[in-house]
Amino acid sequence: MNTNSDPLSHLIRAFQLLPGVGEKTATRFAFFILREDPTVALELSQALVEARTNIRPCESCGHMTERTPCAICAAPGRDASVICVVESSQDLLAIERSHAHRGVYHVLHGVIAPLDGVGPDDLPFRELVGRVKSGAVREVILATNPSVEGETTALYAERLLAPLGVAVTRIASGVSIGADIEYTDPTTIQRALEARRAIRPK
Amino acid sequence: MNTNSDPLSHLIRAFQLLPGVGEKTATRFAFFILREDPTVALELSQALVEARTNIRPCESCGHMTERTPCAICAAPGRDASVICVVESSQDLLAIERSHAHRGVYHVLHGVIAPLDGVGPDDLPFRELVGRVKSGAVREVILATNPSVEGETTALYAERLLAPLGVAVTRIASGVSIGADIEYTDPTTIQRALEARRAIRPK
Repeated sequence: MNTNSDPLSHLIRAFQLLPGVGEKTATRFAFFILREDPTVALELSQALVEARTNIRPCESCGHMTERTPCAICAAPGRDASVICVVESSQDLLAIERSHAHRGVYHVLHGVIAPLDGVGPDDLPFRELVGRVKSGAVREVILATNPSVEGETTALYAERLLAPLGVAVTRIASGVSIGADIEYTDPTTIQRALEARRAIRPK
Repeated sequence: MNTNSDPLSHLIRAFQLLPGVGEKTATRFAFFILREDPTVALELSQALVEARTNIRPCESCGHMTERTPCAICAAPGRDASVICVVESSQDLLAIERSHAHRGVYHVLHGVIAPLDGVGPDDLPFRELVGRVKSGAVREVILATNPSVEGETTALYAERLLAPLGVAVTRIASGVSIGADIEYTDPTTIQRALEARRAIRPK
């Protein structure tokens, strides 16, 4: 009894646009929205428009935020001489939660992935080189994911930046804290062994 | 670097209102919305308001739709003398997809669940009795789920309706088509055996 143009089908199809949401989940979301107080629908509706209108990439690092330059680039306490290169704003937020990086960032919003048609020219490497060339940068930390694409991207960035006389480092790969070696994949174990360090440095 | 009042956190929190959506999924949804074309955010935002504004319960059966009486209640081809009682509009749509019911519906929008504070007075039983008393109804099919609450609700409805001289039936429980008896739970097997029928009725 539902044609494709009625508001319910429309809402279900709209929810299906979200990543990983199929028809069943979208239907569950839609009926939840109808059952709940109207403020829930209004809240989500407004948050969507508000976020899409007010959030834009930081003109310096590319992080998605409502201010440009973003709060990190603008913070006086951050060390602007160390740039951490990440694939996405999500990765940036994960690193922020670790409180392990006090420098700034450069968000690529992607990785080099020829199979998906993404080449180096599609990513903001020119802006990264520009920031390094400005002179105040002493280290670039490549914090792309330890995937095939992430490694390729890190290698490309290393070749691009090394001639500029800046230190280029890569985050360590190894067995995760709390993980079982028994269930860790062979490549990770291989990396962890290759990158072994003396417990008591001489 | 995200305070709780910025648009991104607001959007993440809004997505978390949806059933089964935790912080990780909500964050994925939010960054997807920021990354995609702005029309995606707009589409979902509009669909939410449109659905919540235009969809209301049918004054006769309670089905959530943009018309009242709903398309099913208003259809001349439907047999208004057979009412199928369901827990939700989702269940109604599932039955419609089976094409096995040509009568009308009565949507309870819930089940009797004392532990959740839902008693018979919270469900539209008075409206159901009113429809049956109007005289044109000859059968009420109780199609609540075969759960503890669904069975309780069906039993309650049966006791309420039987004195009115209407036929009250319950949908059959048994082994699902395509399921393996080996993996079917004991209660379902018990039901299937209890409700066995002669293959060739005398």
